Amino acid sequence: MLGILAIAPSCQRSSVSRLTQEIVNEAQNKTISVAQRPTLFAKALADAILEVDQEIESGIEVPIPKDMAGGYTHERHKRNWLILQQAGSLYQITKQEKYASYIKESLMAYAEMYPTLALHPTQKSYATGKLFWQCLNDANWLVYVSQAYEAIYDYVTEEEREHLESQLFKPMADFLSIENPQFFNRIHNHSTWANAAVGMIGLVMDDQDLIDKALYGLPIKEGSNLDKDNDGGYIYEKGMAKAGFLAQLDGSFAPDGYFTEGPYYLRYAIFPFLIFSKALSSKMPELDIMNYRDGIMTKAIYALLNQTDANGQFFPINDAQKGMSWEARELVTAVDILYYEDSSNKTLLDIAKRQGMVLLDETGFAVAQALDNDEAIPYKQQPMVFGDGEDGTEGGVGILRNQNTCLVMKYSAQGMGHGHFDKLSFSLYDDKGEVVQDYGAARWVNVDQKGGGRYLKENKTFAKQSIAHNTAVLNATSHYEGMIEKGELHHPYLYFANYENREQQILSSKDTNAYPGVDMHRTMILLTDESLPNPITVDLFRISSDVPAQVDLPVWYQGHLLAADFEYDKALNRLETLGVGYGYQHIWKEASGIIETDGTRSLTWFGNDRFYTTTFESEIGEELILGKSGANDPEYNLRYDPVLIRRRSKVAKTLYASVIESHGSYDPVSEIPLNPYSDIESLDVVHSDDEYSVITVRTSENIGWTIGIANQENSLSSNHSLNVGDDQLSWIGPYIILKLQK
Amino acid sequence: MLGILAIAPSCQRSSVSRLTQEIVNEAQNKTISVAQRPTLFAKALADAILEVDQEIESGIEVPIPKDMAGGYTHERHKRNWLILQQAGSLYQITKQEKYASYIKESLMAYAEMYPTLALHPTQKSYATGKLFWQCLNDANWLVYVSQAYEAIYDYVTEEEREHLESQLFKPMADFLSIENPQFFNRIHNHSTWANAAVGMIGLVMDDQDLIDKALYGLPIKEGSNLDKDNDGGYIYEKGMAKAGFLAQLDGSFAPDGYFTEGPYYLRYAIFPFLIFSKALSSKMPELDIMNYRDGIMTKAIYALLNQTDANGQFFPINDAQKGMSWEARELVTAVDILYYEDSSNKTLLDIAKRQGMVLLDETGFAVAQALDNDEAIPYKQQPMVFGDGEDGTEGGVGILRNQNTCLVMKYSAQGMGHGHFDKLSFSLYDDKGEVVQDYGAARWVNVDQKGGGRYLKENKTFAKQSIAHNTAVLNATSHYEGMIEKGELHHPYLYFANYENREQQILSSKDTNAYPGVDMHRTMILLTDESLPNPITVDLFRISSDVPAQVDLPVWYQGHLLAADFEYDKALNRLETLGVGYGYQHIWKEASGIIETDGTRSLTWFGNDRFYTTTFESEIGEELILGKSGANDPEYNLRYDPVLIRRRSKVAKTLYASVIESHGSYDPVSEIPLNPYSDIESLDVVHSDDEYSVITVRTSENIGWTIGIANQENSLSSNHSLNVGDDQLSWIGPYIILKLQK
Repeated sequence: MLGILAIAPSCQRSSVSRLTQEIVNEAQNKTISVAQRPTLFAKALADAILEVDQEIESGIEVPIPKDMAGGYTHERHKRNWLILQQAGSLYQITKQEKYASYIKESLMAYAEMYPTLALHPTQKSYATGKLFWQCLNDANWLVYVSQAYEAIYDYVTEEEREHLESQLFKPMADFLSIENPQFFNRIHNHSTWANAAVGMIGLVMDDQDLIDKALYGLPIKEGSNLDKDNDGGYIYEKGMAKAGFLAQLDGSFAPDGYFTEGPYYLRYAIFPFLIFSKALSSKMPELDIMNYRDGIMTKAIYALLNQTDANGQFFPINDAQKGMSWEARELVTAVDILYYEDSSNKTLLDIAKRQGMVLLDETGFAVAQALDNDEAIPYKQQPMVFGDGEDGTEGGVGILRNQNTCLVMKYSAQGMGHGHFDKLSFSLYDDKGEVVQDYGAARWVNVDQKGGGRYLKENKTFAKQSIAHNTAVLNATSHYEGMIEKGELHHPYLYFANYENREQQILSSKDTNAYPGVDMHRTMILLTDESLPNPITVDLFRISSDVPAQVDLPVWYQGHLLAADFEYDKALNRLETLGVGYGYQHIWKEASGIIETDGTRSLTWFGNDRFYTTTFESEIGEELILGKSGANDPEYNLRYDPVLIRRRSKVAKTLYASVIESHGSYDPVSEIPLNPYSDIESLDVVHSDDEYSVITVRTSENIGWTIGIANQENSLSSNHSLNVGDDQLSWIGPYIILKLQK
Repeated sequence: MLGILAIAPSCQRSSVSRLTQEIVNEAQNKTISVAQRPTLFAKALADAILEVDQEIESGIEVPIPKDMAGGYTHERHKRNWLILQQAGSLYQITKQEKYASYIKESLMAYAEMYPTLALHPTQKSYATGKLFWQCLNDANWLVYVSQAYEAIYDYVTEEEREHLESQLFKPMADFLSIENPQFFNRIHNHSTWANAAVGMIGLVMDDQDLIDKALYGLPIKEGSNLDKDNDGGYIYEKGMAKAGFLAQLDGSFAPDGYFTEGPYYLRYAIFPFLIFSKALSSKMPELDIMNYRDGIMTKAIYALLNQTDANGQFFPINDAQKGMSWEARELVTAVDILYYEDSSNKTLLDIAKRQGMVLLDETGFAVAQALDNDEAIPYKQQPMVFGDGEDGTEGGVGILRNQNTCLVMKYSAQGMGHGHFDKLSFSLYDDKGEVVQDYGAARWVNVDQKGGGRYLKENKTFAKQSIAHNTAVLNATSHYEGMIEKGELHHPYLYFANYENREQQILSSKDTNAYPGVDMHRTMILLTDESLPNPITVDLFRISSDVPAQVDLPVWYQGHLLAADFEYDKALNRLETLGVGYGYQHIWKEASGIIETDGTRSLTWFGNDRFYTTTFESEIGEELILGKSGANDPEYNLRYDPVLIRRRSKVAKTLYASVIESHGSYDPVSEIPLNPYSDIESLDVVHSDDEYSVITVRTSENIGWTIGIANQENSLSSNHSLNVGDDQLSWIGPYIILKLQK
């Protein structure tokens, strides 16, 4: 439903004046004809009228709170907040009294009930609410309903106002702040909601005390005995010195807008930031909130829009449900508000066009009108590097893109409770979707049959573990032994990056903490060449361990195995698991082959109606394992996805080199395979030691590249030279990519 | 490429006169401007010009035949036939001499080589060709190239004609007929190609002897020692009395156009039928070929168009590759020719629109013009019943359709060498695709890495076996013990069908031969009701065995298991196969539960972004097995798909009752599950004996249906009455569906 996207024009009594005059004029004619409004706005208006009128006809329901999420009272109060907020928008646009009256009567019912409520009977949250099982939902309610109240502020009498504020809004604001500091005073998306709720009702009631609490938080109390919330996150970050909305803006984002939990959670968190900012922007222009911290909100939105594949789906790093995209309602809000605040952002209109919906307010009106005027400029995702952490210095995420291919490398910090143990992992996408996948979270959000929609136990035992990711795993043990407390202490770092040359984009990052005494160093290149049908991914993963270890390097390829050019024995009548812990217990070992001669090997798969091949250099004794997730999964919580694992045993220093290419397609209607074989003929490690890694890749047309990495010196100006076979390879800077002609 | 779809206007010297005058006029102006032609025709023309001009520039290549399919000489000669045929079309349309000259020079090169050729060196076919490894491809070549020769017939001199015909065409026609009777004289799609090839060149050369052979075949020789072809099909059908093209028309189709091998193969076979018919229609109008056998060709095309799901994909029954659809080039040919022959078929234009391409001849011109004139009438697939066998009396296939749901029940004859052992099986589709799948063939057509694109060994050991289908399997043994020789002797039959009432469509069929001493009787209903979001499938499968047997009833549901309301133990650390033969060796036994109380059970899965549930009645002692295909699959040839198997042990007479419903959806962007729970509350067998099967289905809103089937008497007029609990249930005819209100 479009309805749930609508937000009221703003949280300022004079905000009606900001509504586009055209809307108001029409409204004053008491018509609700929608035909002459901009297309998407007219659609939003028609949808809202349909939905709200139906609810008005059904009558007001304000039940005594009782149920958990999914239950009747929960869903009813949730629906009320959405309908009230929409009714507010409709009243402002149409001036039809039925909407104002509906809001007033509903609020009166809430004001009658609220003073009688004790804490919600479920008592399952670290911050139990009154209307809902958790304060978070109470705050959601207040953010939305503040807007409805604002809309009818001048419609109700002064006595009615006094009644509503003293019985409902002020008590609720106090409950969500001073009565629940563990909820209000964190640096966390829960508190962002709390701050926004208290601040927005404060703005409507013109209550400076509430506004100040919202902006600056409550005084910090040291040594609270509340350690973790229901998701396992810390309530008080160590050293935290401030709270409130501005502190959230300071502490939640890296300077370039990256959000440490990843894009799936940023999408969730962005909504209260924006909705409160919009209200502040109107009521307290002196704060210049949209330019706060050098425009951090704008940066966060663009960071979010850019952490997507070609179809706008967010990279599912950390705990994330796949399929979430820039079509989400939070992004509709983000795009509309940001465009309204600065209409020079014409590429946002392109996103709005793909969203196909706008907010039912002046921001949505502006976007819809600009779209009708054909002002959209195509939005193009760019290769870029994001820093993680408040200062942007705690590792990060790098994105390489060219043509239809997008490579994501993750060398970020742990990402709090929703982080995965996947240092230096990568995922790969083309215009049809995932090529090498990140598993995402083991969770079916809101699907009751799957553990009530909560995180499933396999999220911890599999999805978070290192082996579930495309990164090296030593001694069948996850990074940081899978312990978040250890993971939060460290982070990998960017060794170098260069995406200026579109045809030779490169990222290199290092980790020295995931395993004690082990350095991991991965360099990935997105290489485009006229001799190749698509950009290829080149991967050099170097491990240096103080003591010999078993190293597993998985590739979670997406598709059906077509061919492998190595010998393997496949389990025919009986399948067993690959291991007993750290996620290995969830992988069926389907097949395995031991390499008997050094050389180039490959595996070709078919997915997205295309052919893909990974070509790699294998050593004598290396074991190539074919597996599938899904073992030890008593309730069918996992997906059953294929993986290739390259296992080297008892190695101290080793270099894994590989290439991934997309090289053809197949259509079951024409039944003609186009280019079903790899173009890569050979891949050789020609030099590997502490100082340098050098490989040579050759295609079947005998074109090739020699790629050299300086492993210890990333300065742009240092000179490097070494003998490779009979040749001398010399270069300046951290790497060289040398094209070899026939 | 559009190019390969093009066919020349007709195979008659005077055929140019049949070209739409507009084309000829423009052509005579020597322009090749395409802009003013109907849109799709202009596109076809532009594509063909691009492709053929490129080939002309590259020069003629006529290599000595040597390679198998996929090899250079094979692919080159195949490309030549396509380019020559297109060049012929282009010469007729544009009159540019370069096209005629290219065809002449190419044919001269063939005429020089052909007399020197012995049999193709591969010698791997029951009918080895000269240009190709099999006569079939030589016949393909001649069908296409006849059209090119026709186009330049008046361009070449009489001496050149004499040379080409004596050195190339006549010898080739003789080779494909009198020198290879085992290829030419069958009732089989191979012979259809042979007949069309010989007939078409006969028409061009005005050689009545060749035309007669094509139409009426060679004299039948009894007692040939050639038994089977390379696919395992019989070469001479027992009792076959005639051959040739007309005999193919008599023997290949049921009277309603059904083709015993199923739609995937009908799609392949239809092409030579139509292309030769079109030529005959023009040259020998006295044959009235399009009305032959009551218009069998038209019926076959409509039969084919109707054996599709909502997206036009053919039901993958028997050996079929999934994804093949009415967008295939053979269907473009079929639709264009049929529309040209009878332009009252306006719904064909709707198919042409979805195909997005037309032939480069007068038929394609007519279709493109009609589309530009907006003459298309929406094509709507209908529920219908097809009879199998030459007389339509050997069982058949029934299709029930309503709203977004389509149910296919298969009770056809074996379907020759490409048939599966799946008596009384079904598959289910909605507008997004498969809900309960037919596995199709274990084959990747033309994909070299998968066994050269041929049928894989798992096609025989799994895909053809009964357990791979949604039908009952007794004693873990396939129908007819998986022996085609036995399967070809019998067929199930339609017990009754009624799809007049769109809301209560019903099919009932019986089999008495798949297992000795066992009667199987299945009734399926597509039931639509205002209380249900979508049509539901009701299934009553009754088994009567002379001796107690183990009965397995699989449901190959498509998607991820969400929830099961029965207890099961899932294999956690070790998987084993379900059995040792008849396809059971290819199924991993993932989980199993023994039912301890009679009653309603269910399983819910998620697929196509939707929720589906099968609800069924289980008996005490019944074992519910959850499995997955993919065991004993050393080369990853199988898909790994889930199945629920309901196993009853030592039963002589038993009735399986179940319902399948689609009841909601989930979108990972909104994250809101809509209607994730089944609407079916209970399913009870209230009566089951040899005479009657009666069940009651109730929904959660306490609406329901009592459904009764007369098991022995299918007359429309017979009266039935029995006591069900305290009530008497009476009806007339083979069944009753009685709606129970709250």
